[in-house]
Amino acid sequence: MNEKISFLEHVAYQMRRWSIRMTSKAGSGHVSSSLSAADIIAALFFDVMHFDPDQFENPNNDRFILSKGHAVPILYAAWHELGKLTDQEVLSYRSFDSVLEGHPTLRFPYAEAATGSLGIGLSIGVGEALAAKQAKRDYKTFVLMGDSEVSEGSIWEAAQLATYYKLNNIIGIIDCNRLGQSTPTMEALEGDGPERFKKMFDAFGWRSEIVDGHDMQSLVTVLDEARTNADRPVMIIARTKKGYGVALMEDKEGYHGKALKPDQEKVALEQLQERFADAASYSDSYQWKPRLRQGFVGQASETREEVKITMPLPTYKKGEEIPTRKAYGQSLVALGAVCEQVVSLDGEVKNSTYAELFEKAYPDRFYQCFVAEQNMIGMGIGFDRRGFIPFISTFASFFSRAHDQLRMAAIGHASLRLAGSHAGVSIGQDGPSQMGLEDIAMMRGLPESIVLYPCDAVSTYKLVNEMANHHESISYLRTTRMATPIIYDANESFPVGGCKVLKQSKDDKALVLGAGVTLFEALKAHEQLAKEGISIAVIDLYSIKPLDVQTIISVARACKNRIITIEDHYPAGGIGEAVAAAVSTENIEVYQLAVTHLPRSGQTEELLADAGINAEAIIKRVKQF
Amino acid sequence: MNEKISFLEHVAYQMRRWSIRMTSKAGSGHVSSSLSAADIIAALFFDVMHFDPDQFENPNNDRFILSKGHAVPILYAAWHELGKLTDQEVLSYRSFDSVLEGHPTLRFPYAEAATGSLGIGLSIGVGEALAAKQAKRDYKTFVLMGDSEVSEGSIWEAAQLATYYKLNNIIGIIDCNRLGQSTPTMEALEGDGPERFKKMFDAFGWRSEIVDGHDMQSLVTVLDEARTNADRPVMIIARTKKGYGVALMEDKEGYHGKALKPDQEKVALEQLQERFADAASYSDSYQWKPRLRQGFVGQASETREEVKITMPLPTYKKGEEIPTRKAYGQSLVALGAVCEQVVSLDGEVKNSTYAELFEKAYPDRFYQCFVAEQNMIGMGIGFDRRGFIPFISTFASFFSRAHDQLRMAAIGHASLRLAGSHAGVSIGQDGPSQMGLEDIAMMRGLPESIVLYPCDAVSTYKLVNEMANHHESISYLRTTRMATPIIYDANESFPVGGCKVLKQSKDDKALVLGAGVTLFEALKAHEQLAKEGISIAVIDLYSIKPLDVQTIISVARACKNRIITIEDHYPAGGIGEAVAAAVSTENIEVYQLAVTHLPRSGQTEELLADAGINAEAIIKRVKQF
Repeated sequence: MNEKISFLEHVAYQMRRWSIRMTSKAGSGHVSSSLSAADIIAALFFDVMHFDPDQFENPNNDRFILSKGHAVPILYAAWHELGKLTDQEVLSYRSFDSVLEGHPTLRFPYAEAATGSLGIGLSIGVGEALAAKQAKRDYKTFVLMGDSEVSEGSIWEAAQLATYYKLNNIIGIIDCNRLGQSTPTMEALEGDGPERFKKMFDAFGWRSEIVDGHDMQSLVTVLDEARTNADRPVMIIARTKKGYGVALMEDKEGYHGKALKPDQEKVALEQLQERFADAASYSDSYQWKPRLRQGFVGQASETREEVKITMPLPTYKKGEEIPTRKAYGQSLVALGAVCEQVVSLDGEVKNSTYAELFEKAYPDRFYQCFVAEQNMIGMGIGFDRRGFIPFISTFASFFSRAHDQLRMAAIGHASLRLAGSHAGVSIGQDGPSQMGLEDIAMMRGLPESIVLYPCDAVSTYKLVNEMANHHESISYLRTTRMATPIIYDANESFPVGGCKVLKQSKDDKALVLGAGVTLFEALKAHEQLAKEGISIAVIDLYSIKPLDVQTIISVARACKNRIITIEDHYPAGGIGEAVAAAVSTENIEVYQLAVTHLPRSGQTEELLADAGINAEAIIKRVKQF
Repeated sequence: MNEKISFLEHVAYQMRRWSIRMTSKAGSGHVSSSLSAADIIAALFFDVMHFDPDQFENPNNDRFILSKGHAVPILYAAWHELGKLTDQEVLSYRSFDSVLEGHPTLRFPYAEAATGSLGIGLSIGVGEALAAKQAKRDYKTFVLMGDSEVSEGSIWEAAQLATYYKLNNIIGIIDCNRLGQSTPTMEALEGDGPERFKKMFDAFGWRSEIVDGHDMQSLVTVLDEARTNADRPVMIIARTKKGYGVALMEDKEGYHGKALKPDQEKVALEQLQERFADAASYSDSYQWKPRLRQGFVGQASETREEVKITMPLPTYKKGEEIPTRKAYGQSLVALGAVCEQVVSLDGEVKNSTYAELFEKAYPDRFYQCFVAEQNMIGMGIGFDRRGFIPFISTFASFFSRAHDQLRMAAIGHASLRLAGSHAGVSIGQDGPSQMGLEDIAMMRGLPESIVLYPCDAVSTYKLVNEMANHHESISYLRTTRMATPIIYDANESFPVGGCKVLKQSKDDKALVLGAGVTLFEALKAHEQLAKEGISIAVIDLYSIKPLDVQTIISVARACKNRIITIEDHYPAGGIGEAVAAAVSTENIEVYQLAVTHLPRSGQTEELLADAGINAEAIIKRVKQF
């Protein structure tokens, strides 16, 4: 056995020890899942991967994503062995003041992605691998998965896309330890898991290979070969044992997510030392040093945050009618001209979302993601993490397909820019399956998110510019299918968190808050009521989160403390609830017009009337005062 | 060519004609996608499938799910040919007063499932096929998909599960027309789509077969063989052409979802007649009659709605501490004893959700769904549709993975019973990825849904009984990881839409609305404030949707019109917003305590304090009055 292998086995031994110690100290955590992965991690971090631990964000570093996020003790142990965490820090795992959380989050400075909901890492990896191609860099992306998570469909979405894009720079590894949380994996129950996985990935166009996940020499050889000589995506299927190295739990059910109690911990550490006597008593002096391309000089990470992006003034004319979804596509083209980091991802509806305009202008920055929304969001996380500015579009309703990925993106502070078209019943004949009616609620529910809803092309354009400069969290733009008239001047500004007071007079009976299509219903109601000598104030609530609470309250005060909200969305978590909650201690009445029953196919006007979210509904409500 | 084939080709011709006519009349709709599927549908409905069109709900009928829901004109055309729709009805397609919507919904009496969001039908089919096994019936389930939707991961979740459960009674058909909405499919762009699909499904353990989707004799032979002689799930991969039969659009891009204009319609109908001259002039008298097992006598569909399920009184003792998630498992066992139609589906966390208790009691009614939440919900829809009462459990956070499936389930009026465990920051050390913090918003946003959140074992038990009797829509039970004390008597009742006024006195300074873990924080605050001579009212808001608005308002009136809501959930769409919206015209102040920033790992008490949702936060708030 050569020196390097002895060293790597020693590192794996040390990482196993620390995995046991930190979980026992915390009193919870996934030790058995960490032990199965220890040899793989040792091989990757201390031999195969080309990276500089002193410069984690070095854009030429290979990237590592721990898709099986519960096995995070082994990641912390690796960074401990790399000298970046003290013993004390490692032992703070899972405590409130520590950045070493129960599943990796971006609070840990050496985490590539927040994980913990299974099956997402490979999609993020596909995004990072595409980002490498886009940036013309030759770093490789490694993704470690568990065998349980291969049942998640998102894995197979990623597998198809990686093949389609001929990604020879992504290497997946499945830690096939046979046991899930509560049962053996599906494939293990059916026969030989690794053989089944190999057939499946081969059929999806990957090169896959089965390896003994506890044989260091084999691991190093196979992984290094995958890193160096791939003509397509590679999946390494590692045969491992859960709890490997500790007899009391090795390959046994009932040890998932269970930390060892103090007495068990003692036994486990002894069993470990006995099992790996050589590695435990290792005293050679193999010198590992970071592998990076010879002659490479590290450079600063991408600087997208430092440059404010300014799009030229839009050229729309007032009164012109154009759907905001189309304005989105046009705005993206304008943005692409002034910012090279912008990429567009679309879920096979580019002719509906108008992402096709961007594709036409910048074909090499457009990514067709096909009908696979979960993977599309994961890819977006990867692009974002590698310094790009991804704008991601599909129907508003279909973002619900990737709600969990969005949730994880928010936990990981990814600054995805999302554009959801075909919002609300106003889309008409296609029926409820195509109508985004819960998207505002979903997007508002993402921590620190921004939710925007323009009514015309100018505001769409300006808000796209705002989104481009917003790097702190997810921002969402809700667009409309049908054409709406342009009501704003080209030099109007639309700050996030603002609103536009469009109609206001001395004797307003109520303040109507509209957004998107319903703003025009509000304006229509204003006009019709004016003919009858009744006046109402109207605000364009283009920023739903954050809300301009100050302005809303101050205008409402002058409107007899009455607000009517009107939205093409279900009530739960929508505009009405957001406003009602925001003014709930202000002695202001809030009347909510929203879509309260399941809609159907029909003409836009019929559906707005049926839902009670048209001008007539506002007029009726106002006349009741 | 034999008589039957001539007849089937005639039917296909007629259905193509009607598909063109109805879409042109509506001015929108997916005619090209219908034409590619016409021959498949003719073969299925008029030869292969065993069913009685006069008894759609006959439990022995073969089932058909149109997963590519946009091709619904061909489904309507089939029922027109079956004599169940008049010409006029077919031509009402997509109009407001018609049940023939743009994508199938359950308003159409011959739709098996609401579809229109792609990739869901196969999961529903897996559920129906398992329901057949469970009910010991030999009907078969057919699922027609498009080739675009094969990129959806949910398809591959279903494919894995079908193999695992050795389902020899499900037949998938892919209408491989090569063209998606805006681009050729991924597989078509890479090479021969059908060959690629065959490799993929074979590797997943299916028997798959490629067939010419426009050769009626081949279709009938292959489909009938798949129906009769399968030892495993079968995928029929049909080579078709989009717009087949109409030269102006056949196999051409740019015709997805486009109805033909009147002049085009005329040309198309002529081209069709020319192309299928024999079928168009068919005058033979082949007599099709419904195929059902010889001697079979139809019987009424399942009667679950007609029998009220009554569980025995629970045996819990007041003061005992038990997590509501465990009480859920125990309640399910009690329910299973009095109702045979109950089945339990769990996403590989049965030892966390306690579905394992049900599995232990009734192993043949428990379905391990592994880590594949999207498919699990689809399966649930299938079980529900076939008369079972599915209870589906996973972590509250992971239901977000299946948000789109839940959305579609709601559109299809499926009465899924969902139990989400590990709600909120109170789970502690595992960190934000495992915390359900948006589940209330998501579930409230499903049309007609019911959202329940018990604080103790007794209320959990009673609410499970309520859910069992609720057949109209989705019901959701939110459960807690940690143990909570039992505060209710065994004979207390918990009607959906009610609440429990637990503390109330003459001089209350505010009404606190708690639910789940926060109810105990409210009770703690009540006790501590009482010591200082300050009194507050406390309500257990176990029913979040519907809300008991009457009681809340009347109690709040006696509490100086002040409400404090406290919830282990993000603000958007949560309890605070629901309550603020419900009382928004009542001149009642609502103060909302909720999780306003991204949480982290830590001890429960630390996290409740950090989020400001503990007794101290209530006390502080009350003292500010």
